Order: sequence, then structure tokens, then C-alpha cells
Amino acid sequence: MRDRELDGLLVQDRMDQYWLTGFTGEDGMVLVTERKVVLLTDGRFDEAATREAPWARKVLRKTRGPEETAREIARARLERVGYDPQQMTIGSFTALRKAARPTSLVAASGLIGPLREIKDAGEVRRIRAAIDCAQKSFQALRRWLRPGQTEREIAARLVYEMQKRGAQEPAFPPIVAAGATSSLPHYTPGSRKLKANQGLLIDWGARLNWYVSDLTRVIVVGTMPRRLERIYEIVRAAHDEAVAALAPGRTGAEIDGIARRLISKAGYGERFMHSLGHGIGLDVHEQPRLSKLAKEPLAAGMVVTVEPGIYLPGFGGVRLESDVLITRRGYEVLSDLPY
Amino acid sequence: MRDRELDGLLVQDRMDQYWLTGFTGEDGMVLVTERKVVLLTDGRFDEAATREAPWARKVLRKTRGPEETAREIARARLERVGYDPQQMTIGSFTALRKAARPTSLVAASGLIGPLREIKDAGEVRRIRAAIDCAQKSFQALRRWLRPGQTEREIAARLVYEMQKRGAQEPAFPPIVAAGATSSLPHYTPGSRKLKANQGLLIDWGARLNWYVSDLTRVIVVGTMPRRLERIYEIVRAAHDEAVAALAPGRTGAEIDGIARRLISKAGYGERFMHSLGHGIGLDVHEQPRLSKLAKEPLAAGMVVTVEPGIYLPGFGGVRLESDVLITRRGYEVLSDLPY
Repeated sequence: MRDRELDGLLVQDRMDQYWLTGFTGEDGMVLVTERKVVLLTDGRFDEAATREAPWARKVLRKTRGPEETAREIARARLERVGYDPQQMTIGSFTALRKAARPTSLVAASGLIGPLREIKDAGEVRRIRAAIDCAQKSFQALRRWLRPGQTEREIAARLVYEMQKRGAQEPAFPPIVAAGATSSLPHYTPGSRKLKANQGLLIDWGARLNWYVSDLTRVIVVGTMPRRLERIYEIVRAAHDEAVAALAPGRTGAEIDGIARRLISKAGYGERFMHSLGHGIGLDVHEQPRLSKLAKEPLAAGMVVTVEPGIYLPGFGGVRLESDVLITRRGYEVLSDLPY
Repeated sequence: MRDRELDGLLVQDRMDQYWLTGFTGEDGMVLVTERKVVLLTDGRFDEAATREAPWARKVLRKTRGPEETAREIARARLERVGYDPQQMTIGSFTALRKAARPTSLVAASGLIGPLREIKDAGEVRRIRAAIDCAQKSFQALRRWLRPGQTEREIAARLVYEMQKRGAQEPAFPPIVAAGATSSLPHYTPGSRKLKANQGLLIDWGARLNWYVSDLTRVIVVGTMPRRLERIYEIVRAAHDEAVAALAPGRTGAEIDGIARRLISKAGYGERFMHSLGHGIGLDVHEQPRLSKLAKEPLAAGMVVTVEPGIYLPGFGGVRLESDVLITRRGYEVLSDLPY
């Protein structure tokens, strides 16, 4: 904030708010100044605010408008208050700018994200718990799986297994793609039925105590088709090589390149259409990225997914995904589901 | 659009986009002009766009920036293009305004919502199907319920039952509140366990073929406590009287007032802290509202919830919720779960 000459910062993103204050309510606005934190919310979250963020000055809003936020800005005599232009709507901004005069509202994005990249020990513990929940739920799902079940039913069962084990919610709606549909990286589970001797791609994760896991496996009920096995082995090799290269100081682009070169050499470069991975934590997709454009060095404490894939339209796809902690000496694979 | 002198309208809300075009992709921008509809999306939703919205001009964006949207605005030679200030972020707006010069971007909210209020026969059919799914799932849940299960586990099971019956997803995360927690209208299910002879409030709905249902019931495993029964009967009476008054030409404020007066006369006016109901359709909360402020007349084809409640802190609450279609002659209660 000092670098940007801000004496106040409005934080709207719910996970940023949680990370900064501990407040979990759905409808809040956080104002950070040099000396204090103001948490504006409404009566529905009064109790949560008191319990979770006792260090914040709590303001219960009576209206949906910006008046109370403006009043807090005036009370703190702020001159330049930052906001995130990717979070603030025109509607909110217009009303707030007027009510907050003569304070200047200044676009200031990317202030919290970099702070969240490096996880402390408590955060890593919570990510481990979210991985454990996802993995045990997957093993329970495997025992229950039978041909004839629909993708949607399988996805629902997996969510149920995770919630039975304490997940607040799935980290994202699971992708469950049977047979040819697994060639679509962003497929939504439908009424297609699981058949024997066909690939089943599952991409899932749990949110537990606010932190998430994110995993992908491809399994087969019956015998694995030869063609699927071939691309499976290439993806597996790309995954393993990329993981083994993770270390502080390497860049996301380098790691992405390792997996991509291996897949390209095998002749499938065009069929790996997404980046290799991304940070996880309170969000399923956060900094850092493992992609061609990621030139910043990785650092100990970051937790990233490694998820190469090969997708053959009309046939199916393979993606394998692990969650990996960057350590001072290299890396630790936090997930340990068998392949 | 003519009334507001707009020759173009940007539609960002996903459900508005679906309602206008049939497109279900997660990442799209719709530009409506007098002569055509342009659907901007990216490669992930190429196939969906072609299949679902063949009448739209499809543009596959290559970047996340506004360039392609601006190009379509220029191609159509538009002068004044409306956007919704509650949907557009400052970040998107700043980039788009620059790229779209000399076209003026004009704040224009509330253009699509009123169109969506009146449901046609196909929409009502889909809402009926979403109600049927939610009701059958609830009956299956009742057979499975046992003291000792946690709220979170019960919520997860209910979601699973709905998805097994074809729901895409729950219409919203179900509220499952055991005992005293049911006095919090916006409670999130936790690790509290269901006990015998205690109220269990469940507020849930299914999204099926994009349309939603929204229901609430209070049930007891064992014997209903006398105090709970007393408020149950008041809420039930308020619900029934309000429903019976629904008809075209009545206002949401009148209907809300009927339920509120009955609850107030019984001495619980202060304990009914929310409005009586809201429209449902593609969103769980849409126009019209049944609240003190709703002065517009209701009309045939609207579908609303009626959901009075009484909440006693430290003891528990009762809310009963039905989904009701306004008809030319009065109303039809679409939901038919027993009490």
C-alpha cells in the first residue's frame, strides 16, 4: 500500500477477506488502513463477524448502498483508497465514489494475491486435510462404481462421499467424463453411462476448513483399451518429469515446458491444449501458474497442481493431476493416490 | 432498447444469456442489436454455441480483453450500447470503453429481468419438473433420516438424491438446521447432529434443465415439541391465507401484508424478519418480490415462493415454503408435499 501511496484498501474478494481477517460471511467489505481493519457486513453475519474477526472494527450495514463504507473512509480521514477493478462493479463504484468524496478511489489490483502464494504450516496442514478427504472419497467411489451409472450420478456420489467426510462443499463441481467425452477438458457431467473397458476421467477436489484440493485420475472398469494405455503412459511420464523438476528458483514456464516437450516428442503436442498447473489454497485457481507465461521463480511454501493431459477428439482423454508443495530443497507430492 | 435510445445491448448475466439465446456456456458475452444477436465466447464453448444458439453470430474470442467485443460493436456501427452496471466490473468497462470508441457505453439495468417474470408454458413445465425432483428427493431423504446424522451429511444426502433424479445441481446449497439453529434464516449446515423430538428445518431446491424449485419444510423425528407445534400452526395459517389471496392484479406488498398481519396478531411479528417470497425461474431469486416494497401488480404466468416464518432465538424456527403459479383466475400451488 505504501508503494502505491494508498492509505486505505477496500477488499471485496471473499477469500481475500477470509485470509486477511478470518471472516467467513458471504456479504462483507473489508477496509484496511495502516492502523486498523474495518469489517462492514450486515445483521445476518453479525455473530460470525464477532467470533471470527474480533480484531476488526465491526460495522453492521443497514442499507445496500455505499453510505456506511463512505462514512468509515471519512472517519479514518483517508485520502487515497485502493480497490480492485476486477471485483468492483460500475454500479458500486459510481455510488461509492460519490459518497466518499473528497477521498480518491484508486484502481489497485494484485495486492493480496502475491501474499497468498506462500502457504504457512497451518495452511499446508489444511490443504493436506482437503487432499486426504478427496482421496478417501475417491477410494470409496471406486468400490461403488458399476457400469450403467451415469456421469451425473457418479459426480453426485463423489460429492456426497466428500461431504460425509467433512468437506464443506466440493472445491468445484467434479468433472466426470466417460469414454469419448473425456476429450473435452471442461466437460459437464451428463446422462452418459459408464461402460466397461472404457476410460473414465474424474477431476475433483474438496473444500475442507476453507482450503481446497484438486486431483484428476483416469480409471477403467474392466480392461484398459490399448490406445488409452499408450497416451496414459505418456501423460504419466510428463507428470513425473515435471514434478521431479519442481524446486525454488525454477519458473512455472520451465516446468510447463518440461511436460510439454515430452508430450510433443511423443507426437501429441497439439493435443495438450491447456497449461500444466496452478496454485491452490483458498481458491482452486490462484497464483502461481505453471504456464508458458509464468516467468517468476517458484518459492518454498507454494502449493501447485501438476496436470498434463492428452485429449483425442472422438476417442477420449487422459489427464493426471497431483498437488505438490514446493519445499526449500525441492518438492513434496502431497497427494498419494495410486495410478 | 428503443425507449432508452440504445441500438445495442451487452448482456453479461449467464441466465439472461440463456433466456435470450439458449447458450449455456460459462464464459460468454451477448450483444443484441435490432437485427441480430452476436455471441462472443471462446474455444471451450464453440460446440455448445453452435448447437444451442445457431441463430446467433458466433465469435470465438482469442484473448480475454475487449478487442473482439469492440470489433463487433464497430462492425454493427452502433452508437449507443447499453450495459448493466451491476454486472460490469470497472476493469472490463475501462478496457471496453477505450476499445469501442467512438461508441458510447450507457448504463442500462433492468431490461431483461421484467421480460423473464412471466413464464410461458414450457418454462412452467420445467419448473414443475424441478419441483417434482426436489419433492421425490425429500421423500427419499425422510425414509433415510435417523437421529445422530449431522446437518452437513443430511444436506449432502439430499443433494445426492436430487442429482440421482436428474438435477444438474442443487438450486442453492440446502439449508439443514437441527433444533435451535433453525432460528437462523441463513444458517449453513454444520456438524450439529439430528436429535429425536426436535425440529429439523430443510430449505432446498433442484435445478433441472436450468429451471429451479425452492421449498422449505420442518419435520421432526419422534414427537413434535408443543412450542414448535404452536408456531408451526401459525406459520401454516399465514402460508395458506397468503397463497389463497394470490391473483393477477394483487401486489406483492398486499400478499406479504396478509401473512405478516396474521403472524403479528399471534404475537410474533418481530420474529418474521424477512419478506414473504420471491419469483423463481432461471434464478432462485428473481422478480417479482412478495415484500412490503413490491407495489407492482402480479400477473398470470409469474411463479413465486410463499415462505412465511417464525424464528425464536435459542429455541428454533419454522418456515414453510411453496412454489405457486399465478393464473388468470387466481393461482395454482405447483408443489404438493404433505405437511
